[in-house]
Amino acid sequence: MSNEYEISKQNRVRQLREKATYDKEAVHAILDSALLASVGFVQDGQAVVVPMLFGREGETVFLHGARKARVIRLLEETVTACMNVTHVDALVYARSAFNSSMNYRSATLFGTPRLVENPEDKLHALRVITECTMPGRWDELREPLENEVKKTGIIALDIESASAKVSSGMPDDEDADYEIPVWAGILPLESAFRTLESDDQLIDGVTASEAVRAMQNKRL
Amino acid sequence: MSNEYEISKQNRVRQLREKATYDKEAVHAILDSALLASVGFVQDGQAVVVPMLFGREGETVFLHGARKARVIRLLEETVTACMNVTHVDALVYARSAFNSSMNYRSATLFGTPRLVENPEDKLHALRVITECTMPGRWDELREPLENEVKKTGIIALDIESASAKVSSGMPDDEDADYEIPVWAGILPLESAFRTLESDDQLIDGVTASEAVRAMQNKRL
Repeated sequence: MSNEYEISKQNRVRQLREKATYDKEAVHAILDSALLASVGFVQDGQAVVVPMLFGREGETVFLHGARKARVIRLLEETVTACMNVTHVDALVYARSAFNSSMNYRSATLFGTPRLVENPEDKLHALRVITECTMPGRWDELREPLENEVKKTGIIALDIESASAKVSSGMPDDEDADYEIPVWAGILPLESAFRTLESDDQLIDGVTASEAVRAMQNKRL
Repeated sequence: MSNEYEISKQNRVRQLREKATYDKEAVHAILDSALLASVGFVQDGQAVVVPMLFGREGETVFLHGARKARVIRLLEETVTACMNVTHVDALVYARSAFNSSMNYRSATLFGTPRLVENPEDKLHALRVITECTMPGRWDELREPLENEVKKTGIIALDIESASAKVSSGMPDDEDADYEIPVWAGILPLESAFRTLESDDQLIDGVTASEAVRAMQNKRL
């Protein structure tokens, strides 16, 4: 199996190509450190973008929503869906507005959505989504009820093509602009979990598990 | 002028309607605290989602890219584009997988993109985008060169309809599940700027302005 996604019209990065990568591990790493994906589909000929929770397993991404939700119904009918995940890592203060920008990690993938209908497959997908978002949590919780599984719509998206674009480091200014006495550099943006806050209806003596506590202060 | 966006088929929130708002100020606030928008358009009948820097002025959102970029060319030809911005504020650890979720602030808008071609209008839009992203920076920088403006493509998106969805607070569990001795609560996620890092090619003695320094530790 190739380590890279094949480059096609669909996933070719056209702008700032030097920042592009088609490496599967690089794409996976960006996906795995995100909590939400922006999923695009077509409704009545126009694009709709919806933020969705997701989980990845190998080359498959699982998305979920209410079974009756428009996004599930429409994704089911969509031939090719597009999904993007982007982390902003810093503002880049260059010596000109033109070269001012951001540092980021972005991944875009395309795939044909399919509705997961078998209850066992749905349970598996729900486990993947839960574990990608809240590691260790699935086994702490009761089994989903039959009715809960029925009410949940699961879409599996097998990655057909993908690309990533990563921008990092200091501003890249025009040669002449380095003579201008203006400050330049970066302002890092950090996204991190903070401290757990307990629901006030907890049963006395119940505390968060080690797996849940381990998420505190984790950076995305 | 109404304080709310009119509800139509396009912007009606269908799921979790109790979390929806059509209030213009609420939508603006979510847009203004975001650095990137996920912009969706249709290419060859399929949806493409692209993360873009943007700036808002009243009911207009300005997007930019390279003038020759696919996204600019395609947005120019798009009748209605969709743009979403979502902040994740916390993971919500409920007493079941079914009720586990996230707290978030999300805004979605629809509008007809138009290419901004007049150089003065383009400069104005660039100032709006720069000031929304890096307040106070525009006046610290040299004027954009004619060629830089020419190479930049600007799309203006007048907001035709929009909605926001906000989820906050503690888990909302099934009545029976409150008897289960499992921890529940939230894990806040914080996105904040950190400390400025200077480019190592600065002219001796040049330091960051007050406006730039004021961005440090700012939370999104």
